Amino acid sequence: MSWFQDSLMARRAVAKGEARSEHAITEETQGKYHYVYGAFVEPVLTVDPGAVVSAETHDAFEGAIQTERDMPSEKLNFPYLNPQNGPIYVNGAEKGDCLAVYIKSIVPRGPQPRGTTVLMPEFGGLVPTADTALLTEPLPELVKKLHVDAETGVKWNDRITLPYEPFIGTIGTAPEIEAISSLVPDYYGGNMDLPDVAPGAVIYLPVNTKGAYLYLGDCHAAQGDGELCGVAVEHPTVTTVQIDLIKGWTIKTPRLENESFYMTVGSSRPMEDAARGAYRELIRWLAKDFGFEELDAYMLLTQCGRIRLGNMVDPKYTVGASILKSIAGTPR
Amino acid sequence: MSWFQDSLMARRAVAKGEARSEHAITEETQGKYHYVYGAFVEPVLTVDPGAVVSAETHDAFEGAIQTERDMPSEKLNFPYLNPQNGPIYVNGAEKGDCLAVYIKSIVPRGPQPRGTTVLMPEFGGLVPTADTALLTEPLPELVKKLHVDAETGVKWNDRITLPYEPFIGTIGTAPEIEAISSLVPDYYGGNMDLPDVAPGAVIYLPVNTKGAYLYLGDCHAAQGDGELCGVAVEHPTVTTVQIDLIKGWTIKTPRLENESFYMTVGSSRPMEDAARGAYRELIRWLAKDFGFEELDAYMLLTQCGRIRLGNMVDPKYTVGASILKSIAGTPR
Amino acid sequence: MSWFQDSLMARRAVAKGEARSEHAITEETQGKYHYVYGAFVEPVLTVDPGAVVSAETHDAFEGAIQTERDMPSEKLNFPYLNPQNGPIYVNGAEKGDCLAVYIKSIVPRGPQPRGTTVLMPEFGGLVPTADTALLTEPLPELVKKLHVDAETGVKWNDRITLPYEPFIGTIGTAPEIEAISSLVPDYYGGNMDLPDVAPGAVIYLPVNTKGAYLYLGDCHAAQGDGELCGVAVEHPTVTTVQIDLIKGWTIKTPRLENESFYMTVGSSRPMEDAARGAYRELIRWLAKDFGFEELDAYMLLTQCGRIRLGNMVDPKYTVGASILKSIAGTPR
Amino acid sequence: MSWFQDSLMARRAVAKGEARSEHAITEETQGKYHYVYGAFVEPVLTVDPGAVVSAETHDAFEGAIQTERDMPSEKLNFPYLNPQNGPIYVNGAEKGDCLAVYIKSIVPRGPQPRGTTVLMPEFGGLVPTADTALLTEPLPELVKKLHVDAETGVKWNDRITLPYEPFIGTIGTAPEIEAISSLVPDYYGGNMDLPDVAPGAVIYLPVNTKGAYLYLGDCHAAQGDGELCGVAVEHPTVTTVQIDLIKGWTIKTPRLENESFYMTVGSSRPMEDAARGAYRELIRWLAKDFGFEELDAYMLLTQCGRIRLGNMVDPKYTVGASILKSIAGTPR
Repeated sequence: MSWFQDSLMARRAVAKGEARSEHAITEETQGKYHYVYGAFVEPVLTVDPGAVVSAETHDAFEGAIQTERDMPSEKLNFPYLNPQNGPIYVNGAEKGDCLAVYIKSIVPRGPQPRGTTVLMPEFGGLVPTADTALLTEPLPELVKKLHVDAETGVKWNDRITLPYEPFIGTIGTAPEIEAISSLVPDYYGGNMDLPDVAPGAVIYLPVNTKGAYLYLGDCHAAQGDGELCGVAVEHPTVTTVQIDLIKGWTIKTPRLENESFYMTVGSSRPMEDAARGAYRELIRWLAKDFGFEELDAYMLLTQCGRIRLGNMVDPKYTVGASILKSIAGTPR
Repeated sequence: MSWFQDSLMARRAVAKGEARSEHAITEETQGKYHYVYGAFVEPVLTVDPGAVVSAETHDAFEGAIQTERDMPSEKLNFPYLNPQNGPIYVNGAEKGDCLAVYIKSIVPRGPQPRGTTVLMPEFGGLVPTADTALLTEPLPELVKKLHVDAETGVKWNDRITLPYEPFIGTIGTAPEIEAISSLVPDYYGGNMDLPDVAPGAVIYLPVNTKGAYLYLGDCHAAQGDGELCGVAVEHPTVTTVQIDLIKGWTIKTPRLENESFYMTVGSSRPMEDAARGAYRELIRWLAKDFGFEELDAYMLLTQCGRIRLGNMVDPKYTVGASILKSIAGTPR
Repeated sequence: MSWFQDSLMARRAVAKGEARSEHAITEETQGKYHYVYGAFVEPVLTVDPGAVVSAETHDAFEGAIQTERDMPSEKLNFPYLNPQNGPIYVNGAEKGDCLAVYIKSIVPRGPQPRGTTVLMPEFGGLVPTADTALLTEPLPELVKKLHVDAETGVKWNDRITLPYEPFIGTIGTAPEIEAISSLVPDYYGGNMDLPDVAPGAVIYLPVNTKGAYLYLGDCHAAQGDGELCGVAVEHPTVTTVQIDLIKGWTIKTPRLENESFYMTVGSSRPMEDAARGAYRELIRWLAKDFGFEELDAYMLLTQCGRIRLGNMVDPKYTVGASILKSIAGTPR
Repeated sequence: MSWFQDSLMARRAVAKGEARSEHAITEETQGKYHYVYGAFVEPVLTVDPGAVVSAETHDAFEGAIQTERDMPSEKLNFPYLNPQNGPIYVNGAEKGDCLAVYIKSIVPRGPQPRGTTVLMPEFGGLVPTADTALLTEPLPELVKKLHVDAETGVKWNDRITLPYEPFIGTIGTAPEIEAISSLVPDYYGGNMDLPDVAPGAVIYLPVNTKGAYLYLGDCHAAQGDGELCGVAVEHPTVTTVQIDLIKGWTIKTPRLENESFYMTVGSSRPMEDAARGAYRELIRWLAKDFGFEELDAYMLLTQCGRIRLGNMVDPKYTVGASILKSIAGTPR
């Protein structure tokens, strides 16, 4: 994959983007999954930069929704939702560094129908929630179990089959002193639900504390922009990532690179603030590493910037702002 | 163009999507351009459904920014901005009907450099404005004049040339009793700055008052998602549209159709409200015309809906929500 | 009323805050009430500064809700809502001036029960609306007719009687080129629903066009902060105001003065933007007229500024920011 | 204080609102102050319901800003800000219970000038921040040290002295599984910056985990609505509270009671969501405990609800919604 040889990960990271060791986190070795992003627990795995790690991820409900008669309000136990693999301790990582995570593959696992989407009370983009607190009655609860196959796709009904376009819904590092619910996206990553965090991409995450404490989970088989009802096609997977470390590259919020574009990620409310945060970081990136003057980058992105809406349902909304590599040019 | 034969415009409209007459609005016949959307002025043209109209549009500054030394704060006279062609009175159009406007072509006109983008005080997505009113000092004013050519694109600098991807920034019908600035997008269309309103698309607009009073202007040669600094590559054009009328199809907000997808458009603040409005209308459209149950459409769009950010700089933010035609199926 | 002698109206206005003529606008002389703020209609009255005008206002429903069985969705005809008296043409008023309107009295009129509040579909602070567009079912429609009396108050039920605390819900000048629904609040005033616009206060309004074109209506007998369900205790009144003109005092948004405080008014979405707008104008006012340095005023308001939420239900939300006169000191 | 005998704390709590033991947390016994709300640390004190606890609080900067030449960007070490006393473990408290905290007194301590307010980069209501991320240059840093005295007030300058109106800026219980920065307000309390959390009031807090883990700190000598620049008059104090426990009263978000009113507290973004949350909880409280029908409470609050803006600067904005006790009546 030639573009990867030229990626920031390959060019700047300690292990030069090379795969140097292999590791697996199975359900068994993971043991207890985690529901917060923090450094208060023992790492499940300690690795050097260059580690390739395959993790058996659960779906966001930890498998509790098995049939279309399993009502979320009965089967789920808030806040024990969105179980995460990890944390993975990365040797050498210190506050102010950047973790580079190359997503190698996502493979569905488990018996069919292995995909799940639901309507839950007080959750979703078009219903009252704890935040957007209205008085109207909730929608009925609904569960839809879906046949998910990497080759044939996600079968919605007899007429509609969606392509299998998997990505990691939740990935990030530990905050420095906090432990925050895996339902939340923020500066350290977390529950961004951004479809670009997909096989073939490198995500760059701020290191906030010694060892970085990488978590991941919540893989989606398909998702539209905004994850409208709050629940994508959730499914268990084997997800394989390659972890590297860029010393001394201090970034405030997640960034992403794939064959086509560079992206910055903002998570905030209201949604315009997420978009502002993402675009401002992209401007500053272009100014710092690509030779643009800041105001020229501001005007240029006005003409060619792209916005991807990750989620409009989580405690913070997530937006990715990107520029084509062909326009951005080559970073220094 | 085979998909057009199957469009809602071709299937439902009075003139069956056929071009039945030709008209031109030149700078001369337009005379005074307009800065509000309303029915308080005399139509510049009256047509029957099936009319093809070519309009000489001005750029958003009515040509006042001629060189990079023309400072916006000196040359522009708020609120006399964003000049519009029209209004075009459409015979037979009544409140509750829908105007279908097929965008046939946009051709740049005028001497080079005919493209203009600027940084203006109190305007743009990343500076304090009258709405997001902060205390920090404004950015410097800046003007960039650009060579714009339909074949060779938009020349940004010696290294970067953007493709010419023109669209209509501002188009809509008159409100029933109001006359609203052409800087505003809302339920009747207006300043949506949505790049999908491009040649090859049909935009559907609510008719709010007898004759519809169609306005259009503000064509952009290129624009990124959100129109970040508030000013795309503005340029004067000859824009050609075909106007038709769907009797009795009452829509609340603009909709759009092209070869690939169906889209609904929401304009509101904060941005999540624009996204909610667009998605809700799309769900209702799928339920009404495509045979979906409402909650199934809600869950399906969660997996495959697409969001396009039009503007994040105007008095209301504009978002388009869309679904691929291959998934939506055929409307009744 | 000694403070009034010292008000900005008394000190700066053309008629020195003196009552120099008396006028009445009755239902009969008003004739057609208005549903937009604009300069496209003939003034109902032309006055000189110093005019005292008594206007027979309708309630926001123009009296269409007479009993608790009159359902809003049947009786009301959107957008013909919130009828306004006026416009009043003020001789000598020009763009860039300021209209000073002293509210002398509000007296309820009409047969009992003369107060009305309702729950309407798609309207209110805690239900889905055209802006905050959710999928949940609307609340039931409800009408409550209330006995309103200036002496005894507003009788809610056998146990609860609220004090009669009337104010003008909607008041403002015409925009320069627009005609905007009387349901909207903005820089020119309009449907602010701010309880401080009450007898004993002076409201200062920007003049945007020759003659100012003052409108008013929508008086409330009682209202909580935010006008939560969207409908206060609406009632018909005789409202008496004294109109004066401050030449050359250019303000961007409404300001208000009463015995206790100076206030600026912001209308925007999201609500923080309304608060930002109000506070920024207050800081600038303190800096310009009261001798504060801007950053000192910013820090001082942090310790003593007061926020009054007008509405959280209209197309823009309205917030008043104020400072006690005892702290602000005397304007130059 | 007769109203207190009738408070929900006195009527429902385990210790009947009686003071049954006395405790002190000095700087020495506190040792390390805390910067997160969570249950990951050892309690500094364990008490039974009825405990009166006096705590030596630090100011929000832990005393690091001693003179007007101490620049925040040099002296402060994010995220080690807003130090908290506690946690206090309350015997018998379990998830689903409610902690009642009666604020008995706040007494300033430490050498003069003991009050501090500052302007910091990327922090405050009218400047770009990490959330509202704009491109404009930050304001200059500024420090203002203030003489604060319980009798004579807060001396701003030679002309202006503000009354000493102290309250607890940050107070709350531990989340169930999270540890969240003390800069954040949320459902468990935290950095609400709500001036009603003052001596004479009872605040009710949800218990999320065994022992409740009460934290408090960040006392303000004076603060306006919204804490506009982000920093009130911060000062060190001895703050005395009485802690009681209401078994089985499950509340989702903080509530408050004083002599005059009942209040619910919402923290969210955008600000309208904070207001919605607060008002919805107040409606539900009126419906559950005061005998109102929900829709009647909705309409009644429209006429008499009061909104207090706590902060418009923290990661979530805080709003209190209240109703006068004279209108609400007596809870069951």
